[in-house]
Amino acid sequence: MLRVAICAPSRSITEADAARALTLADEFRGVELHFHPQCFLADGHFAGTDAQRTAALVECANDSSFDAVWFARGGYGAARVAQDALAQFAAAAQSKRFLGYSDGGTLLGGLYRARIGQPVHAPMVADGRRAGGDEALRRVLGYLAGETGGVEPGLDHHPAVAFNLTTLAMLCGTPLMPGLSGHVVMVEEVCEHLYAVDRLFFHVTAHLGGIAGLRLGRISDVPENDIAFGHDAEAIARHWCMRHAIPYLGRADIGHDVANRIVPFGLAGR
Amino acid sequence: MLRVAICAPSRSITEADAARALTLADEFRGVELHFHPQCFLADGHFAGTDAQRTAALVECANDSSFDAVWFARGGYGAARVAQDALAQFAAAAQSKRFLGYSDGGTLLGGLYRARIGQPVHAPMVADGRRAGGDEALRRVLGYLAGETGGVEPGLDHHPAVAFNLTTLAMLCGTPLMPGLSGHVVMVEEVCEHLYAVDRLFFHVTAHLGGIAGLRLGRISDVPENDIAFGHDAEAIARHWCMRHAIPYLGRADIGHDVANRIVPFGLAGR
Repeated sequence: MLRVAICAPSRSITEADAARALTLADEFRGVELHFHPQCFLADGHFAGTDAQRTAALVECANDSSFDAVWFARGGYGAARVAQDALAQFAAAAQSKRFLGYSDGGTLLGGLYRARIGQPVHAPMVADGRRAGGDEALRRVLGYLAGETGGVEPGLDHHPAVAFNLTTLAMLCGTPLMPGLSGHVVMVEEVCEHLYAVDRLFFHVTAHLGGIAGLRLGRISDVPENDIAFGHDAEAIARHWCMRHAIPYLGRADIGHDVANRIVPFGLAGR
Repeated sequence: MLRVAICAPSRSITEADAARALTLADEFRGVELHFHPQCFLADGHFAGTDAQRTAALVECANDSSFDAVWFARGGYGAARVAQDALAQFAAAAQSKRFLGYSDGGTLLGGLYRARIGQPVHAPMVADGRRAGGDEALRRVLGYLAGETGGVEPGLDHHPAVAFNLTTLAMLCGTPLMPGLSGHVVMVEEVCEHLYAVDRLFFHVTAHLGGIAGLRLGRISDVPENDIAFGHDAEAIARHWCMRHAIPYLGRADIGHDVANRIVPFGLAGR
């Protein structure tokens, strides 16, 4: 039996979100989901206060009866708890997989920097709300059960990471930012104007010297601006990669959508 | 006669914007505005291609007949030209004031790092479009004519800088970021959700170790989110300053509005 603890370091989920995931988990023999009650708390924007979110995350990470910790939802909040929580992680956290993306990337980055457990870019429980969201949840449940079909198909011999572009930009230079020298770095973005995507690339590429290359996930739901930007997302990525001598390696099958593939950090999943 | 060159490193302005500023300049004896034709170019989002914006900025900076360079408008674009342009600045740039804010802060930051000229956080030509915008333009024209009434009133014995929060966040760790140890850093923001402001503070405060303190300008036009954030802008600033042992020094009279005061970088303007 693979026991998965679910907590919400950022925003909360509903009981309906949990019920959907639990129903789907029944299809996967040997995978057992355990929702921490903190998932359903509310404190303004967040799934409980910073202290409540920190405590639940630490509890899930340090409970040796769990094999994995799955983040319920993104939406911002992990940055306020990650450093304090990681400082309290004990030996039991070391053998676990930690799964999530978007704002959850803040924790994946901090875990990867600290060499704690196995960070995995993967859909989250709240993705079940999307049209066709069952597909995203089944991808994670299957991966936890040992299937490899949901893993991003372009992984090569380089260690890899995947991040939301804004999340990675905000990590740069903080105590949570992992060294990514020699890595293939995949980025995706949602709901940002192309001028903001360009500005994020200006910032992020200045911090990615020495990476093996960059792959561009989907840049989706770009809001309409009062003026067309004049360059598409791939031209933006190529421009900034060129300026920093970073190899641009093409597209990646990740994004804020139900097709979002799984990217185990480092060399895992090969 | 004080001759002011105006160019547009980011977005373009209209002939009407220029006419408004020229009319107001007539009130200030000895101040003469010269609009570079590049101000009115268009290339997608930008006031001309990267090459055109770079060339106009370099031309204005290196023309020894000008005493100041005033940025026409922000809106994103300076990050794509700043490094190349600054590398071409000659001795004539050294004695000039450079005025602007918002996206123009990218250039002010780069100039301050390179110790070129006198960067000044100040309203831009496009601020004339705002209701009551004449007040903002007169503040800059008066400052250029030698008046000090428009300068931010809280400047103390520390060197100071002022930035848009997103602009400063994107500068951090890039080749344009000045060392700000010992400085009072003022930040302002517009049109960002409070969760994004919190995320920006998470990032920026990690880069501001050793500053003399932070002052918070106006955080204006915050969009309504699907959930109330639960902390106001000042609580956010205090939270992140406390986490990084940065003295929080209260409010600053800057923002994306007509009341936006002038902040000469460093110890100028005292």
